[in-house]
Amino acid sequence: MDTVAYKVRPEDEVRDLIDRWIKAVRAQDIDGIASHYAPDILAFDAVSQLQFKGVEAYRKHWEACLAMCDGLMIFEIRDLAITASGDVAFAHCLNRCGGTAANGEEKASWMRMTSGYRKIDGKWMVVHEHFSAPFDMETGKALFDLQP
Amino acid sequence: MDTVAYKVRPEDEVRDLIDRWIKAVRAQDIDGIASHYAPDILAFDAVSQLQFKGVEAYRKHWEACLAMCDGLMIFEIRDLAITASGDVAFAHCLNRCGGTAANGEEKASWMRMTSGYRKIDGKWMVVHEHFSAPFDMETGKALFDLQP
Repeated sequence: MDTVAYKVRPEDEVRDLIDRWIKAVRAQDIDGIASHYAPDILAFDAVSQLQFKGVEAYRKHWEACLAMCDGLMIFEIRDLAITASGDVAFAHCLNRCGGTAANGEEKASWMRMTSGYRKIDGKWMVVHEHFSAPFDMETGKALFDLQP
Repeated sequence: MDTVAYKVRPEDEVRDLIDRWIKAVRAQDIDGIASHYAPDILAFDAVSQLQFKGVEAYRKHWEACLAMCDGLMIFEIRDLAITASGDVAFAHCLNRCGGTAANGEEKASWMRMTSGYRKIDGKWMVVHEHFSAPFDMETGKALFDLQP
């Protein structure tokens, strides 16, 4: 009987990582979220600062953001595209992010996400993350009502 | 006499691409800028829309932005990091973007850039670009005065 080798595509492995990470975000599970980040992750988040250097700084920022989340977390993505070769990959998608208050009212906006990955010691990790909302050039205000 | 093969690292090739692209941006050379983009580029720019699909749409947006630029273009980057494997790469950096008016006054802000690359038919191309400024959670306004 022949041996059949199943070769896993890196795109599929990164997709699995993203699925697990999204589940952790929705569960507001800070350990689960941070477990996908490389120790030296460099993150550009949508709010507050230009950048966050290292998993500890970024984890603290996530904790502050989750603490502000009113009720259930809304976090969905669409138009995910993953590009991979060897042990390097990047992905981009739109993400709808916000919360559902106790009275059922949703407050969420479509934003953009780009992420970079490396396979380190056989395990894919997030080494870079970039979230943002575009702003209006006239008012300087973030555009929260854009639809894909 | 032995033949010596010089292997070019993909990181260096992408760095060359970025250098050429920055020169085109500073020269406000729209053909030069667009020549680095793959036909099916998907771009998240800092202003106006969630996304731009394809080089023609993104080129038009660049033209509109350059038309608003008052005088000399300011476009500098710092903390550039490039990660590459085979025919895929991504990069991130901070970029100071704005203009110098005729009276010499500079109006520029530090923003963030992430970009994705693929080697297509032997040539590295930008297939994804993401520019942004973070916003303030209280006011919803983009933060233009942040310093690295």
